[in-house]
Amino acid sequence: MSSTAGQVIRCKAAVAWEAGKPLVVEEVEVAPPQAMEVRLKILFTSLCHTDVYFWEAKGQTPLFPRIFGHEAGGIVESVGEGVTDLKPGDHVLPVFTGECGDCRHCKSEESNMCDLLRINTDRGVMLNDGKTRFSINGQPIFHFVGTSTFSEYTVVHVGCVAKINPAAPLDKVCVLSCGISTGLGATLNVAKPTKGSTVAIFGLGAVGLAAAEGARIAGASRIIGVDLNSKRFEEAKKFGCTEFVNPKDHDKPVQEVLAEMTNGGVDRSVECTGSINAMISAFECVHDGWGVAVLVGVPNKDDAFKTHPMNLLNERTLKGTFFGNYKPRSDLPSVVEKYMNKELELEKFITHEVPFSEINKAFEYMLRGESLRCIIRMDA
Amino acid sequence: MSSTAGQVIRCKAAVAWEAGKPLVVEEVEVAPPQAMEVRLKILFTSLCHTDVYFWEAKGQTPLFPRIFGHEAGGIVESVGEGVTDLKPGDHVLPVFTGECGDCRHCKSEESNMCDLLRINTDRGVMLNDGKTRFSINGQPIFHFVGTSTFSEYTVVHVGCVAKINPAAPLDKVCVLSCGISTGLGATLNVAKPTKGSTVAIFGLGAVGLAAAEGARIAGASRIIGVDLNSKRFEEAKKFGCTEFVNPKDHDKPVQEVLAEMTNGGVDRSVECTGSINAMISAFECVHDGWGVAVLVGVPNKDDAFKTHPMNLLNERTLKGTFFGNYKPRSDLPSVVEKYMNKELELEKFITHEVPFSEINKAFEYMLRGESLRCIIRMDA
Ligand SMILES: NC(=O)c1ccc[n+]([C@@H]2O[C@H](COP(=O)([O-])OP(=O)(O)OC[C@H]3O[C@@H](n4cnc5c(N)ncnc54)[C@H](O)[C@@H]3O)[C@@H](O)[C@H]2O)c1
Ligand SMILES: NC(=O)c1ccc[n+]([C@@H]2O[C@H](COP(=O)([O-])OP(=O)(O)OC[C@H]3O[C@@H](n4cnc5c(N)ncnc54)[C@H](O)[C@@H]3O)[C@@H](O)[C@H]2O)c1
Ligand SMILES: [Zn+2]
Ligand SMILES: [Zn+2]
Ligand SMILES: [Zn+2]
Ligand SMILES: [Zn+2]
Repeated sequence: MSSTAGQVIRCKAAVAWEAGKPLVVEEVEVAPPQAMEVRLKILFTSLCHTDVYFWEAKGQTPLFPRIFGHEAGGIVESVGEGVTDLKPGDHVLPVFTGECGDCRHCKSEESNMCDLLRINTDRGVMLNDGKTRFSINGQPIFHFVGTSTFSEYTVVHVGCVAKINPAAPLDKVCVLSCGISTGLGATLNVAKPTKGSTVAIFGLGAVGLAAAEGARIAGASRIIGVDLNSKRFEEAKKFGCTEFVNPKDHDKPVQEVLAEMTNGGVDRSVECTGSINAMISAFECVHDGWGVAVLVGVPNKDDAFKTHPMNLLNERTLKGTFFGNYKPRSDLPSVVEKYMNKELELEKFITHEVPFSEINKAFEYMLRGESLRCIIRMDA
Repeated sequence: MSSTAGQVIRCKAAVAWEAGKPLVVEEVEVAPPQAMEVRLKILFTSLCHTDVYFWEAKGQTPLFPRIFGHEAGGIVESVGEGVTDLKPGDHVLPVFTGECGDCRHCKSEESNMCDLLRINTDRGVMLNDGKTRFSINGQPIFHFVGTSTFSEYTVVHVGCVAKINPAAPLDKVCVLSCGISTGLGATLNVAKPTKGSTVAIFGLGAVGLAAAEGARIAGASRIIGVDLNSKRFEEAKKFGCTEFVNPKDHDKPVQEVLAEMTNGGVDRSVECTGSINAMISAFECVHDGWGVAVLVGVPNKDDAFKTHPMNLLNERTLKGTFFGNYKPRSDLPSVVEKYMNKELELEKFITHEVPFSEINKAFEYMLRGESLRCIIRMDA
């Protein structure tokens, strides 16, 4: 056991006191893990749009002060009662959605939407006692999606922690905690393009580029990137994109442009934009008879997906996925192995790096659309 | 070769002279089959809603005079140039959609939507010369979906003819030409429920009951029939339905009723109504994580399928199917074998039988909602 086990740890954390205001690195107290919880020392974390979205708190009930962060790599510091799968020293990735192992979803081969530990962006406390493990002079600081990795130490439910190969470099594989696995899994686990097929990727952010990387790994021969921002096209070539379409360059709907380019439609499409128009186009651009469209982007509350049912009767398939259909504990270790075997490249997703003290720069890079992933080094 | 090969055959056919008017059994002339065509002697035919729908000619450009009929069993009388797969005497089922064997769809394992021979309800002529093979005193009579089985003899493209086991009773297996295979295949080939699962069937007409029969064959433990007409429920028990829901009996949407009955949703649903509301309910009633909804019903031109994209992101799958995803020539013979092995029951679909001279009675039974399938005996 580490000497800190069972003790409150004082450490640095980047606290969001108010919506949209720069984070403040503060000294916080991190309580020991309770039953079925583990306390992690975070070594690297990266910034994802979901952090920014909830930090801006537009369209949700604001919950502050809060510690954001959900893509990270760390080491188990201590474990709470009942935790048998993990021990101090294990290398891990915390994940915003969990796997209890006992519910119908965890027992189903098809689902990763655990009843107990499925993402909950409204909850700012731990399940065991409905309280936070973070405080500053007695004032509780809320958690974010059960991970709160913008802290040197954090407490996470054991079901949200994937134990990985200790040889894996945490400053690289930390990006597998969320967006990259989401895009990769959307293609490899859900769209499942066959070798030689044609795949359209809508949205060339980190998630879409990871989806393109999945298509490359699957051996697709044409990977058509679709984005409203033509600046994304140059970078996308590194991720296997062979062609590009900017819907703004055409008078007709982009699904018609794609159908013309591909003799009737693409074999697979993966939507990674969050735009309802892109979702509809991504569905309608797949070939009848066999086309499969996969939706990944998180839509707005009031969006409606709308299509003529004939598009479905003509033997198209429409699916959505959450975290690329990976079960976090069962499946993430093998995604890390894909990186270790050089099947999957992660370096190209990492465009920036900052020390923890400059975490607000990571927000700026993302808000300016300059970064794919910015790694935040906790020890600096 | 039969003595009639190469000759015009005079025989009886039920001609629809005008939309919605009783058919008239007339003597017609049936020309010999041209290249890639076969002439069939029809022994039994049955009536499907699609015949009635195009006979009523509401919502389509009327095409008259026309010979309807597309569910049938017959024997090859003679074959045209280039036909090598069939010979006089073969027992066959003509099908309204075909399989050329050469196009991308025919070569794909997933699709049955042949580019050349896919259903075309607007065409009243044969592909080879753009002319009809039927006439009365020189006046051409139009074909219907390439089959026109309400005639003692008919000419069909070889790609629309499935050669079946000659031991199979044609007065039973003729119903496999369309609706029954459609419903059965929607469940067995597309929804693919696993043993012990829960399946909802929307619409308990012949197609829906065949979908229920598929669920029974697949070993589903709960088969929930949903229909606006409670009279359908008694009959549906014979097809494996274990429970019933009439949406009219509830104040809330039927998808919510089903979710409550099944702890969150059914594992599979198959929509066989043609109603857009039922299509949406059928999708929204499947369980998140693993649910699959399959649409079979033919919608109206102006219908829009509308749902919140979150229903998709929660890992539901939506698919449509055409003719139960069966490839007519490749797959129908094995469906006939299912009947021969007593895996599949067909007798319970056949509620009525009439001689050819009384074919208009079959229309009456269907219009009054009394029949599932009415067999029309050509020799009587
Ligand atoms: N389902 C999940 O489990 C999961 C997990 C992580 C992220 N996401 C979602 O995935 C989506 C993408 O995330 P990201 O981080 O890559 O975002 P991003 O903002 O970096 O990239 C989105 C891209 O989509 C493009 N775009 C927007 N509207 C478009 C349209 N109509 N047509 C074509 N391109 C369009 C933008 O120009 C941008 O380049 C977001 O909606 C995010 O919330 C989902
Ligand atoms: N996709 C294909 O290849 C294919 C082939 C044949 C038939 N079809 C279609 O399948 C559908 C069913 O055919 P059928 O011959 O069994 O029709 P049918 O008219 O005998 O049965 C339809 C049933 O649906 C019920 N219904 C209607 N609206 C409903 C609703 N909102 N909720 C619940 N029940 C509702 C009706 O009461 C009726 O019992 C039709 O739309 C037909 O065009 C499709
Ligand atoms: Zn994320
Ligand atoms: Zn679970
Ligand atoms: Zn074909
Ligand atoms: Zn039919």
